[in-house]
Amino acid sequence: MHAEIITIGDEILIGQIVDTNSAWMAQQLNNAGIRVKQISSVSDDKQHILTALAEAANRADIIFITGGLGPTKDDITKNTLAEYFGAEMVENKEALNNVTRLFEKYKRPLLEVNRLQAQVPQNCEVILNKNGTAPGMWFNSNGKIYVSMPGVPFEMMYMMEEEVIPKIKSLFKLPVIIHKTILTVGEGESFLSERIADIEDSLPAHIKLAYLPKLGQVRLRLSGYGEDEVIVSKEVNKYASKIIERVSEFVAAEEDVPLEKAILNYMTERRLTLSVAESCTGGYISHLFTQHAGSSKVFFGGAISYSYELKESILGVKNETLWQFGAVSEETVTEMVEGALLNFKSDYAIAVTGIAGPDGGLPGKPVGTVWIAVASARKTVAKKFTFGSKRQQNIERSATGALSMLNTLLKDVEK
Amino acid sequence: MHAEIITIGDEILIGQIVDTNSAWMAQQLNNAGIRVKQISSVSDDKQHILTALAEAANRADIIFITGGLGPTKDDITKNTLAEYFGAEMVENKEALNNVTRLFEKYKRPLLEVNRLQAQVPQNCEVILNKNGTAPGMWFNSNGKIYVSMPGVPFEMMYMMEEEVIPKIKSLFKLPVIIHKTILTVGEGESFLSERIADIEDSLPAHIKLAYLPKLGQVRLRLSGYGEDEVIVSKEVNKYASKIIERVSEFVAAEEDVPLEKAILNYMTERRLTLSVAESCTGGYISHLFTQHAGSSKVFFGGAISYSYELKESILGVKNETLWQFGAVSEETVTEMVEGALLNFKSDYAIAVTGIAGPDGGLPGKPVGTVWIAVASARKTVAKKFTFGSKRQQNIERSATGALSMLNTLLKDVEK
Repeated sequence: MHAEIITIGDEILIGQIVDTNSAWMAQQLNNAGIRVKQISSVSDDKQHILTALAEAANRADIIFITGGLGPTKDDITKNTLAEYFGAEMVENKEALNNVTRLFEKYKRPLLEVNRLQAQVPQNCEVILNKNGTAPGMWFNSNGKIYVSMPGVPFEMMYMMEEEVIPKIKSLFKLPVIIHKTILTVGEGESFLSERIADIEDSLPAHIKLAYLPKLGQVRLRLSGYGEDEVIVSKEVNKYASKIIERVSEFVAAEEDVPLEKAILNYMTERRLTLSVAESCTGGYISHLFTQHAGSSKVFFGGAISYSYELKESILGVKNETLWQFGAVSEETVTEMVEGALLNFKSDYAIAVTGIAGPDGGLPGKPVGTVWIAVASARKTVAKKFTFGSKRQQNIERSATGALSMLNTLLKDVEK
Repeated sequence: MHAEIITIGDEILIGQIVDTNSAWMAQQLNNAGIRVKQISSVSDDKQHILTALAEAANRADIIFITGGLGPTKDDITKNTLAEYFGAEMVENKEALNNVTRLFEKYKRPLLEVNRLQAQVPQNCEVILNKNGTAPGMWFNSNGKIYVSMPGVPFEMMYMMEEEVIPKIKSLFKLPVIIHKTILTVGEGESFLSERIADIEDSLPAHIKLAYLPKLGQVRLRLSGYGEDEVIVSKEVNKYASKIIERVSEFVAAEEDVPLEKAILNYMTERRLTLSVAESCTGGYISHLFTQHAGSSKVFFGGAISYSYELKESILGVKNETLWQFGAVSEETVTEMVEGALLNFKSDYAIAVTGIAGPDGGLPGKPVGTVWIAVASARKTVAKKFTFGSKRQQNIERSATGALSMLNTLLKDVEK
């Protein structure tokens, strides 16, 4: 079964928002065995939406549409769908009850524009929106299914998880797609490829291998297609094992998890704890860890010491060290990481201090200069990096560098 | 001039990565006066790419393609483009020099697969890739322009900024697109819409208004299209002023900036400083601030106090308070925010403590219960929020709640 996703909204086409909905939906659909052929973002323009619907219907069996269902004048998806299907608009009782309920809950008067949200094309089945006023819509037309949902992420997510995917599963026997991802750290794409060339050449046609590089990490993803979950899984796992064995020194995780999650899993299993002292990464490393459920078992917290004063008062970095060597130096980062270990009483610590830019470069320390240290009670490692001039990239690369160093230290100390 | 963006790669269609490239490219193109008609993500499949190219060429004058240029077997964009144009592959000298230079720089042996990266279709002009081995390509065919770039964000960004956009500007006289965005906080989309209905109705056809809601914030975006920058700007600004005047109590910024950047700008102008005490947001609020250049003028840093111990040792929350009222309570959040003010010596502070979930709910404090406090020397405000069960959303909503409360306190105390 092939799907397409159409996201509607000028805000995507002018780059004001990043379309995160599509990636999430694609993930859910793949897990359910539905292959996404194409994702298209189109403007709030009737003719353009009509064309996109027709093109998608040529390629896919089921078309998911998000966006353009709000109460305001720029939201034209619903009327355009009615035109596409040649259907009348009717008021839907359940949808109206839902709108009324939400406005009562928040003690707001029900405006005419909100009441209009309960109008839907008569050929649709309404999908209840527990978290908002715009109803979702399910259409069945000429052997194709069309599902229209709001663009607000948590409204769409609820509908997909609770209503749409279960409904699809109840209606169709879906084929199996199995993905297996291996996270590698510290080796480039082309070298990995060279190392596993013979394994890659031996893959059967229904198993594909993809390389997904990102800032010092490369994900190797095997995708197997078939009818029987057990057989496809077994085949995919067989090739995955061969690859893992071949490049084992670079493998950080044997599943599709971010590096920090692989570290959390490893540390949770061994009941190890972590704290941080972040300067130029400004909370980003902490955020990477704490976005994951269960991180509080490992992650104690730490300091974001943007100023000299906080480096001294929270981390105990010596005033002389800061003035003699500067905030961005091996001496400071070492005192930061050891201060974190001591003050926050964790088994491991990370410290980062650098010049994220775009301003703030110093003689001998250009923008992009970053010192990173990781430590346990037994060992401290500090390393200097020279990144580029882009702030966001310097923050991300510093985080990846820190995670990669911690990963190495963990494997080194704990083995 | 109409553009389309085609991103190639199965990793987008299975939802493994979020396509942030397109949003960034769309922004750059819009700023240059090029309107993006559609963004399509297609799979690493020859026939599908050929179809996407032909469809895009029907709608747009210039087609931007990213992805699928790596050295590995799943990267088929280059050969597919050669087939599309009916062109031979030839080795490009500049591209080969670039690959050789990069491999020498990183002291790695040049593999055959890397040398192949210097092969390009003979009908293209090579765009130098300063940051990677895959050359960009510029094609001119049947009155349409095609630009193919790597999918690695910073390689693509460099090419767009330094090579592609300047080249387009030198070749074409571009029309003007002016966007003006007003950031509002604390009022819903439909109520804003009702308040400004008459202004919206009076807009001329070449000026569009869009509502972009997101977690307690609504952006109002006016887009004006025309030939003369001064005239279009003036018109757009006229309507923007009317709207701002009408809903002034909700306006947090009169430009397209995130809420935390509006706060940073406001505090920078007044030389005010900020620190944080983050528990359930785990560094996310700090990251929001510190991702912006110049944030160190305002932001001192703070504590990420995931554990009880760190709440006591860094922030000075009393042990009795934690045990009597719990970590998620008005008493604790108040001591956290006042501890941050006192220990980190900033003018303002934010504190957040809550249960982000999905586990960890307590009797009377379900997952999603969050206490937020903001404080200055003159005033402390604490507020309880009850969000949902999704961790990532709870973190984001807590951050928005905190920013919104700080914004209100600033305007209240500083006016």
